[in-house]
Amino acid sequence: MSVSELSYALDTFYLLISAALVMWMAAGFSMLEAGLVRSKNTTEILVKNILLYAIACTSFLLIGYQLMYGQPEPGGHAPAANFFFQVVFVATAMSIVSGAVAERMKLTSFLLFTIILTAVIYPIEGHWTWGGGFLAQAGFIDFAGSGIVHMAGAGAALAGVLLLGPRHGKYGQQGRVYAIPGANMPLAALGTLILWMGWFGFNGGSQLQITGMANTNAVASIFVNTNAAAATGAISAYLLTRLVWKKADLTMILNGALAGLVAITAEPAAPSPAVASLIGVGAGLLVVLAIIALDRMRLDDPVGAISVHGVAGCYGLLCVVLTNPEASLLAQLYGIGVIFGWVFITSLAVWWTLKKTLGIRIPAEAEYVGADVTDCGVEAYPEFVSSRSS
Amino acid sequence: MSVSELSYALDTFYLLISAALVMWMAAGFSMLEAGLVRSKNTTEILVKNILLYAIACTSFLLIGYQLMYGQPEPGGHAPAANFFFQVVFVATAMSIVSGAVAERMKLTSFLLFTIILTAVIYPIEGHWTWGGGFLAQAGFIDFAGSGIVHMAGAGAALAGVLLLGPRHGKYGQQGRVYAIPGANMPLAALGTLILWMGWFGFNGGSQLQITGMANTNAVASIFVNTNAAAATGAISAYLLTRLVWKKADLTMILNGALAGLVAITAEPAAPSPAVASLIGVGAGLLVVLAIIALDRMRLDDPVGAISVHGVAGCYGLLCVVLTNPEASLLAQLYGIGVIFGWVFITSLAVWWTLKKTLGIRIPAEAEYVGADVTDCGVEAYPEFVSSRSS
Amino acid sequence: MSVSELSYALDTFYLLISAALVMWMAAGFSMLEAGLVRSKNTTEILVKNILLYAIACTSFLLIGYQLMYGQPEPGGHAPAANFFFQVVFVATAMSIVSGAVAERMKLTSFLLFTIILTAVIYPIEGHWTWGGGFLAQAGFIDFAGSGIVHMAGAGAALAGVLLLGPRHGKYGQQGRVYAIPGANMPLAALGTLILWMGWFGFNGGSQLQITGMANTNAVASIFVNTNAAAATGAISAYLLTRLVWKKADLTMILNGALAGLVAITAEPAAPSPAVASLIGVGAGLLVVLAIIALDRMRLDDPVGAISVHGVAGCYGLLCVVLTNPEASLLAQLYGIGVIFGWVFITSLAVWWTLKKTLGIRIPAEAEYVGADVTDCGVEAYPEFVSSRSS
Repeated sequence: MSVSELSYALDTFYLLISAALVMWMAAGFSMLEAGLVRSKNTTEILVKNILLYAIACTSFLLIGYQLMYGQPEPGGHAPAANFFFQVVFVATAMSIVSGAVAERMKLTSFLLFTIILTAVIYPIEGHWTWGGGFLAQAGFIDFAGSGIVHMAGAGAALAGVLLLGPRHGKYGQQGRVYAIPGANMPLAALGTLILWMGWFGFNGGSQLQITGMANTNAVASIFVNTNAAAATGAISAYLLTRLVWKKADLTMILNGALAGLVAITAEPAAPSPAVASLIGVGAGLLVVLAIIALDRMRLDDPVGAISVHGVAGCYGLLCVVLTNPEASLLAQLYGIGVIFGWVFITSLAVWWTLKKTLGIRIPAEAEYVGADVTDCGVEAYPEFVSSRSS
Repeated sequence: MSVSELSYALDTFYLLISAALVMWMAAGFSMLEAGLVRSKNTTEILVKNILLYAIACTSFLLIGYQLMYGQPEPGGHAPAANFFFQVVFVATAMSIVSGAVAERMKLTSFLLFTIILTAVIYPIEGHWTWGGGFLAQAGFIDFAGSGIVHMAGAGAALAGVLLLGPRHGKYGQQGRVYAIPGANMPLAALGTLILWMGWFGFNGGSQLQITGMANTNAVASIFVNTNAAAATGAISAYLLTRLVWKKADLTMILNGALAGLVAITAEPAAPSPAVASLIGVGAGLLVVLAIIALDRMRLDDPVGAISVHGVAGCYGLLCVVLTNPEASLLAQLYGIGVIFGWVFITSLAVWWTLKKTLGIRIPAEAEYVGADVTDCGVEAYPEFVSSRSS
Repeated sequence: MSVSELSYALDTFYLLISAALVMWMAAGFSMLEAGLVRSKNTTEILVKNILLYAIACTSFLLIGYQLMYGQPEPGGHAPAANFFFQVVFVATAMSIVSGAVAERMKLTSFLLFTIILTAVIYPIEGHWTWGGGFLAQAGFIDFAGSGIVHMAGAGAALAGVLLLGPRHGKYGQQGRVYAIPGANMPLAALGTLILWMGWFGFNGGSQLQITGMANTNAVASIFVNTNAAAATGAISAYLLTRLVWKKADLTMILNGALAGLVAITAEPAAPSPAVASLIGVGAGLLVVLAIIALDRMRLDDPVGAISVHGVAGCYGLLCVVLTNPEASLLAQLYGIGVIFGWVFITSLAVWWTLKKTLGIRIPAEAEYVGADVTDCGVEAYPEFVSSRSS
């Protein structure tokens, strides 16, 4: 056994475990979204989450990976670990969309959009930075994907939400906003904690190598900073929510933690833990304000995905300027504009085409009865009497 | 520190983490089964799952491990990691049984059967291949246990189901089959995603060593192929279900993913990712057909365990012939026949003995009221009014 | 790449993954407690669990870590992995408290107590053993924290419970004890299995290094023994419960497994797996008796945390004398007395001060309606009609 063989084994193992943790985030999104929708749309959101992960894995294998990295099919063994790590990122981007369009998006159209986003839209923009394309050359820095994955997912979601419109009953006369509570808070909390755990793979694995003193130390710092930003994101969202509404709103606290995670993702290695904590504080405050603002704009996002991944992602990309001396504000703004513009416009075109052909919205009656019965034929909680339906 | 010591540390760590992921599958089976039974039998299925894992770990420690591998008690430190990896496999085999016999099997008899399967029946058949016994010498190939673990579990389950009979109300006059929906779909989805994640340990760890170029590459390929087969299994089950029933049946999609995982388990290293995807496609189609067929035969399997683990396991063992040049159809058929025959016949004998002595079926009244109240004294959801019971 | 660099990378990776598994225990405690409280207090217990983890991470970063280990802020990269591993232990200690005081403790007071425990009380007592302080010098042995983490958490919890009093309706006239069933058994089982999995990181990671033959073998033994003690803890609690109440009480089985885990934590490397199994048997029996005894003493602990972590933790510390030749009964008793005394008295002082100022108990009306509505404004299961409220 040579040292280089050992080093190869360790780096591969590290990347595979990181990828398994990111794959686990699929469960996190599934539970978060299943907890935050109403019980009548729970089975359907689970179907969407399982299938989007399955489709992302398959279409990225057949098309997307080559497009993004110019690599041959990953069957040549050597790039298999890298492929597995990258493929779970694609799925994450798409998971963001499913939450924002929940409770009213037609399943078939959603799945067709999934194919196009994961096979074409994401790989092309991913190539621009991580494939060594023009954004990388322009000095745009996005370590683990605050923009490439999270803001991109939010961009695709926003385009969908604009064409889809809000859920019936969400917005009333004279700017009234009605809360539509999620059916199962423990699932939402579980989903958030799964995502929190998976994020150690998401950010930690993005160093791509753990051997070598610099890499080892970077990965350790990434773990600490990722955790710190999530923690302070939760705390600041709690404090702001408490201040404004006098209540400890669990969903805001969860979104605060997630916003902290999204924000630190752009540069999790450079800051000290104290600075990472400050970045998390900002993310937690921002996400609460963003959720309020989106509701004022009547953009209905049942799980807050656009605020968490879009707004906090954007904020995280800008924070890089403060912590990484190689970053420039111009390059970051350029990257934000290019990525968001690309994903938003292409997504809008795809959603629009789907709207004009298959349709993207379920019928009003299905929305009233719930997609579980009309589309899945399986209720999520068939035995629990619903106080809404009676 | 020498290179060989480092290599030993890395391989041990890899095996321990793999084993922890397989242990995690106990949570996957628990949640899957808790989601797919009715609420009145949920606590009881959780009790069975926790205790079967606990019993499997204890009886394999005291008896089974020596029987399977001819090793002394694993206290001599060196084989401890290997023991831990192997013991979680035994528990997996037994978890398959609990799902198939759910909602009507007597707890005490189930636990006694658990002792015998994990201490004797499984270790003996496991020895024939993984312990270097006659099936290994005959050229039978089953990398991580499509047959040795999954089909074996299904064989034990089938024997139990035959002697137990279907749940009351499952089958009616003139071949009618009544759906008995599971009480909690998010739990079923969570369980499947836990199993999906755990399977990276199940298949990846079965290489037993990650150091050395060939091992490292094999493990990476195993991760990619395991994921690919699960993904296409879910997709093909979805498409077939959609075609036949016009509905996106979540439970079929979940079982499709699991069938893909079971099928690739027999040889996850050899195929290219594209071929692994094809194997998953076949598994997803097959499991839907198998579930329909079993219901036609009035074999009541509340969670589809026999179809997922038995039928897809068998199919996976046959697929090895297509991807591994060292495999032969004859040897695979021989292995299938021997393993299934052994487990089925010995299990039948044990279930029969239990039936004639303690009884294996709960009283009709307990089945009506639910085993949670009669056997556990603890309801799973005591505060949620059930629409069935009213 | 040098061998020492590789060794550093592997040890760091091992510590980070162990820490991620311990972080995952935060999800375990959240689900366990969310499952064991009534639905009207479920959102609130989730808020407490998320925030206590977030606060623990932040206050240990800013104050506690320096206090415990005399290290500078962990931004110097090298101690980052160690910091991350240690910080998740603090959160574990505090998680124990939230369960015991559930369903009646005021949120704000709980959070203030969290700051003090994680910034001051825990770090000081942790320093005495793990920081090389006087208990370490006195020969007190507590490998992974049966006392330093678990009994300490239970001590803080007991102090809170004494000042807080039982939930309304828990204890009646003439020594009557009324069961208040938890709302969601699958969550409780899931939480236990998450804790079981996370414990491999908790105990396995406490070796702090995996390279070097002795370390590698120790970590492997720790995994096996941790699993074995949990398994037999579940079994013996089941058997005793069955004997006494003729029922397979799930919550007792779960607490048996957890008690086995707590007990083996004080010395998970030294015993043979068979001896570890015996230690688990004792823990499982003990925890059932302790839960009964606490109820007789009218100490209301909704999740059994004081019994699981306090009584089994104490028992585990005493078992060290039987398995580790370097341990002495006197030193163990001394450590138990000092740690428990310190945590109990300081906690009592803090709880008392909070009681006299902000108050620690929610108003009777809030307890009747549920803290979810009064404190969080978000119901955990808003659509499921409750059989209690109607």
